[in-house]
Amino acid sequence: MGEFELLARVRERLPPPGPRTRLGSGDDAAVSVPEGATATSVDALVEGVHFRRDRASLTQIGRKALAAALSDLAAMGAEPGEAYVVLGVPPDLDEDGCLELLDGMVELASETDTTLAGGDVTRAAELVLAMTVVGHAPAPERLVARSGARPGDALVLTGEIGGAAAGLLLLERPELASELPTETVERARSRQLEPRPRLAAGRALAEAGATAMIDVSDGLGGDALRLSERSGVGLRIDASDVPIFDARAPFYISEMENGGLDEMRFAFAGGEDYELLASLPHGRIEEATRAVAEAEGTALAKIGEAVAGSGVEIRLPDGRLLEPEGFDQLG
Amino acid sequence: MGEFELLARVRERLPPPGPRTRLGSGDDAAVSVPEGATATSVDALVEGVHFRRDRASLTQIGRKALAAALSDLAAMGAEPGEAYVVLGVPPDLDEDGCLELLDGMVELASETDTTLAGGDVTRAAELVLAMTVVGHAPAPERLVARSGARPGDALVLTGEIGGAAAGLLLLERPELASELPTETVERARSRQLEPRPRLAAGRALAEAGATAMIDVSDGLGGDALRLSERSGVGLRIDASDVPIFDARAPFYISEMENGGLDEMRFAFAGGEDYELLASLPHGRIEEATRAVAEAEGTALAKIGEAVAGSGVEIRLPDGRLLEPEGFDQLG
Repeated sequence: MGEFELLARVRERLPPPGPRTRLGSGDDAAVSVPEGATATSVDALVEGVHFRRDRASLTQIGRKALAAALSDLAAMGAEPGEAYVVLGVPPDLDEDGCLELLDGMVELASETDTTLAGGDVTRAAELVLAMTVVGHAPAPERLVARSGARPGDALVLTGEIGGAAAGLLLLERPELASELPTETVERARSRQLEPRPRLAAGRALAEAGATAMIDVSDGLGGDALRLSERSGVGLRIDASDVPIFDARAPFYISEMENGGLDEMRFAFAGGEDYELLASLPHGRIEEATRAVAEAEGTALAKIGEAVAGSGVEIRLPDGRLLEPEGFDQLG
Repeated sequence: MGEFELLARVRERLPPPGPRTRLGSGDDAAVSVPEGATATSVDALVEGVHFRRDRASLTQIGRKALAAALSDLAAMGAEPGEAYVVLGVPPDLDEDGCLELLDGMVELASETDTTLAGGDVTRAAELVLAMTVVGHAPAPERLVARSGARPGDALVLTGEIGGAAAGLLLLERPELASELPTETVERARSRQLEPRPRLAAGRALAEAGATAMIDVSDGLGGDALRLSERSGVGLRIDASDVPIFDARAPFYISEMENGGLDEMRFAFAGGEDYELLASLPHGRIEEATRAVAEAEGTALAKIGEAVAGSGVEIRLPDGRLLEPEGFDQLG
């Protein structure tokens, strides 16, 4: 397979570029006309580290690679603009396989008005997808960093957490599925394999005065800790206010009995939910909740608050305190 | 090694961000304020495909990864702005090794006023470097695509070609070095291991009215063909006008005798010189030559012209025609 031949086939499948793109894929660089400020993020998925081809379709893998990258733009409150793809192609992936990966990206790109504006394809030992996404805002101060939380701010969370980790567990131990309602199994797998970046919710939260925001990709505990550190505040989270995916589903209990996993710890440390965690003044919670419901069709929960000090304290329903854990591992 | 710990050490080494960067590495995304138009390009280097750790230092590998990416911005006539790095780290590369890779990038970033604005680090089976670079221009029409060459335009080339391929040959067959002057060996290795993106020359050519431009990364023959196809013109190149690196160096001849390699073919098909090939009106050659000499300290050679039709014809000094060959291989 030739690189240029593959790229030509790829270009045939791309939808027309968005209004900011003046020159799309096929030149030395893509040319865009931004509207004031850009938010740029890179995110890589590697086979065996972030996904396995025997557990997800190529379309799902391509889609998730773009979703994970766009989630960072959601966490800035940016409007998605362009995406660039680096594809490392292993010997056992043929041209049709590459196009299936791309199909997943094209699907999500269309749903989110993202232009696939360029890329590079190379041989590699394993499948590698490195995505760069560029989002836009009228001005830099319209984008929300992790660093603006202030003592007294409320802490809010979109959607629910723990579903993606449950989906991963079900992919790793498919026998657990028989103990669960089909609908729960499907929903958990979908949370793991086909996450949706909360782009509309992110913009709604930015408009509603979010002072700091982060996407929950490494687990609520660890990501809360990062927001806390960047903002220089402490965070207090009341676990009973945190919406958790099907928390009492039997397999959690089975896991607890058999593997010693703690239900809450599982939900707080499990990553890849791609929900948004934000701080904002208490007085704007109502407006933000309404805006997120309208924009994204999802709930916004007040789960805690920012306080003077440092660190993250998660209070469990039984009064114990949970130590937040991030996944500070490469990957 | 933890990802966040490594990233913290990386951030300590970064020079302060440039004036366009409002939020650098360490948040969900980097925030920039572009000045009118952006040129964005991605470029990946994979161990065993694009480099070998036993033939180049980690600093050289990091430096070259950024150089190859910035060369695409040079070919647009863009001013370099920000770079984003995805690093896939194999099991046998430790944290100090990662920092050495980064040192090479920081070195070239400083020399070219590029801000290292973000990145992602992941485990991988082999060393992977995926670079995204963003360049700037006051307006999109100030950037030079591959598609604007018109019949009658002159074809010009910065610097000389064949040096990087000679350097690669010397790395593959070090015994050839003994037949050559030390200075030639050093220069060839440096062309291969430490290429310099022609950023100043690219901007000078854009100002001097370049109608189309491409960087010579895959070999002059193949890259000329791509410019020809995108512009919808034919290109006629006179090989005797093309500055070739030490063309009569004994090892070319040795290669010809022993391996059947053709000196000219070697120079025209050998990649990684990162020179610029541009078309422009004949009337502006003098101005362009002066501007490139002033900006980049290098020569600009008129090597041919654009004609109505299609395809690339390379006329050798003996009157034979050389078929242009690109490296249409993944990699």
